[in-house]
Amino acid sequence: MKTYNLPNPDSWKEICKRPVFNTRDLTEQVNAIMDDVRLNGDSALYRYAQKFDQCTLTELQVRPEEFETASSLVSIELKQAIQVAKANIEKFHTAQVEESKVIETMPGVFCWRKSVGIEKVGLYIPGGTAPLFSTILMLGIPAKIAGCNEILLCTPPSSAGSIHAAILFTAQLLGITQVYKVGGAQAIAAMCNGTDSIPAVSKIFGPGNQFVTKAKELAQLSGVAIDMPAGPSEVLVIADKTCVPAFVAADLLSQAEHGADSQVVLLSDDAQVLEEVKVQLAIQLATLPRMEMAQQALDKSFMVRCASMEQCFELSNVYAPEHVIIASENAESLAEGVVNAGSVFLGNYSCESAGDYASGTNHTLPTNGFAKAYSGVSVDSFVRKITFQKLSAEGIQGIGAAIETMAEAEELFAHKNAVSLRLKSLENG
Amino acid sequence: MKTYNLPNPDSWKEICKRPVFNTRDLTEQVNAIMDDVRLNGDSALYRYAQKFDQCTLTELQVRPEEFETASSLVSIELKQAIQVAKANIEKFHTAQVEESKVIETMPGVFCWRKSVGIEKVGLYIPGGTAPLFSTILMLGIPAKIAGCNEILLCTPPSSAGSIHAAILFTAQLLGITQVYKVGGAQAIAAMCNGTDSIPAVSKIFGPGNQFVTKAKELAQLSGVAIDMPAGPSEVLVIADKTCVPAFVAADLLSQAEHGADSQVVLLSDDAQVLEEVKVQLAIQLATLPRMEMAQQALDKSFMVRCASMEQCFELSNVYAPEHVIIASENAESLAEGVVNAGSVFLGNYSCESAGDYASGTNHTLPTNGFAKAYSGVSVDSFVRKITFQKLSAEGIQGIGAAIETMAEAEELFAHKNAVSLRLKSLENG
Repeated sequence: MKTYNLPNPDSWKEICKRPVFNTRDLTEQVNAIMDDVRLNGDSALYRYAQKFDQCTLTELQVRPEEFETASSLVSIELKQAIQVAKANIEKFHTAQVEESKVIETMPGVFCWRKSVGIEKVGLYIPGGTAPLFSTILMLGIPAKIAGCNEILLCTPPSSAGSIHAAILFTAQLLGITQVYKVGGAQAIAAMCNGTDSIPAVSKIFGPGNQFVTKAKELAQLSGVAIDMPAGPSEVLVIADKTCVPAFVAADLLSQAEHGADSQVVLLSDDAQVLEEVKVQLAIQLATLPRMEMAQQALDKSFMVRCASMEQCFELSNVYAPEHVIIASENAESLAEGVVNAGSVFLGNYSCESAGDYASGTNHTLPTNGFAKAYSGVSVDSFVRKITFQKLSAEGIQGIGAAIETMAEAEELFAHKNAVSLRLKSLENG
Repeated sequence: MKTYNLPNPDSWKEICKRPVFNTRDLTEQVNAIMDDVRLNGDSALYRYAQKFDQCTLTELQVRPEEFETASSLVSIELKQAIQVAKANIEKFHTAQVEESKVIETMPGVFCWRKSVGIEKVGLYIPGGTAPLFSTILMLGIPAKIAGCNEILLCTPPSSAGSIHAAILFTAQLLGITQVYKVGGAQAIAAMCNGTDSIPAVSKIFGPGNQFVTKAKELAQLSGVAIDMPAGPSEVLVIADKTCVPAFVAADLLSQAEHGADSQVVLLSDDAQVLEEVKVQLAIQLATLPRMEMAQQALDKSFMVRCASMEQCFELSNVYAPEHVIIASENAESLAEGVVNAGSVFLGNYSCESAGDYASGTNHTLPTNGFAKAYSGVSVDSFVRKITFQKLSAEGIQGIGAAIETMAEAEELFAHKNAVSLRLKSLENG
């Protein structure tokens, strides 16, 4: 890790720059896949399964018996762990449901909003060696709580045409039965436009590689909503002398193992903390199966000694990290300094892994500095908050003159007339 | 207006299609403006003011004395009307502020979220003949309530280099002092990248023409958030025999006068209602200053006689309108049928103008069917809901095994290790 010692705040913006990935070249390629799926539907999907997943499918949707088989393949221990995570995530997300409050803004003018689940949503779960069943919990649970009618899940099949047992078990546990064996940009294209087998959805969620990310971007341009823009995962740890260096190193490594493009940052007001974490990093790194990948991520990452803890938080807010860990016994009061972040972990026992899997918070979070403007996924992401208003006769009589005056000033006379007619009818009535 | 009589539900999707505007040709043009502003900053903005606003500026930011002059030019009546609207909008939006609730998901595992205002936001207010000061209220009030630190406002100057008095009065009333004389795509470019005079922001809000819309789209691709995708404004009225046809006609016309591309839809289970509204439309249209524009919008709009009120709501949900007016004495119970909409107006006295200006709800709403996935602007649009979590020793001991099991199943051993180290230290301690 690169180390900066008391860098000038003028240089922070430069230090905080993420590596830029040029995805412009992908546009043409992904556009072609999107067009193909729009025009050729299922047959394009079968063709891509052959090409990208080396898999001959006769059906795209997972059958009920496949769920049953999967369930028998998942260990009891893992099932129980998933149940624990599910219970915590449900508890935290259920508390996000907003109750309708009717506000009488003026006598006879009643306004409220009502959360209504998005009718059709699509979840994308990437394939690869590790089955990301935890992401199904993080997307499926709020979707269910929000009351989404139709929840689809697309995930790439193995070359044998199967889906990982833990994925199917978790989907079934949440009551998600529409699971399709489609991966990559073609999955996004299918959910965006619909095919004979796969219905079109209004909003698409979930992580993915650069092809998936680009496809989501193109889907958004065509009018389908997406959860948030994507970027490599990242953690920033702010540690003071009350931290446990071995824990800090473990947290940095648990981010670094995600991939060579993961971002890992350590800030401290204490030079010795940085040194001790470096030692721990070397010790722990040697034991990791994903050592090489983690090392590559660390090579591109940095640590900074700041003049004060206050300055650590200022620098962190410039970076706007996906995850912030405050490794300090005073984490709670220090946390007031967080302005830009996706999720914050307080104290020496709150490791990022807890939030990644089971504490209850969501792990789908804004990366790449997007925390400056975006929130992580929550029940909010799966609802529309529709506003309602009802004016009584008293209401329109009380507010009417103000509306007439404003409409006239904006030169919108039909707007004014809609009020005037009602006021007149009440005078005459 | 085109009239459909009991159309087959199979044809609804086709009936509900919005006119498609091809904005692909704009991309190059708007990209050039964005690049120009990024490279040349303020000097490009002065040049565009000359070119597009026929205006020679020596300074981009509105000066304090211009606010004072503006205030003296606004009538007392309009000031009072704006104050009434402001009070109602503040009341409704203040109720949207979410209080932090700490949830103990398991013993010793505490999770909560905290709403934090986006630090820097930019509001765009279009120019043209009518000064849209009402949109300043709709964007500026929730921004202030959310606690955004820096709120910029860009709006095009007149050829004399001035900004409409009502715009400046309203901005000042809300405490928005950073007002810049910049319009069009160049305003979005300035707020996206920053110039010497205009700071870059993290999220851009506000309506605009096709150039502004395209610029916001490009800004979003470059990582700056936007309020929502844009499209022409629209209203859908669902009327039964308890409606007042003159009021319905007035509401349709108040939408139609927005522009030739406005969408106006009327649904009823009663053929006579449609006939009576047609008569009223003809009568009222003749008196409107914007008659021609409204007529053009009506020409592209439609009314549908449905088999039942239930079917009216089904069709409305396929359309997913920005505004729905339920013109019926039973509006409140009928409103349960609304699934896809931006804002809903209940009963014969709840005209859209009320919500456009002063009832308290927000008028920045999803058009073009986006209501299927997007909500209107609210305080939520100006905050990030950052999640926090704190695990005690008891917390990590209770949840640790579940995390270890899940991390191992996802083959993320450093994630597991971050927990194992903590559990071991507690065993040894």
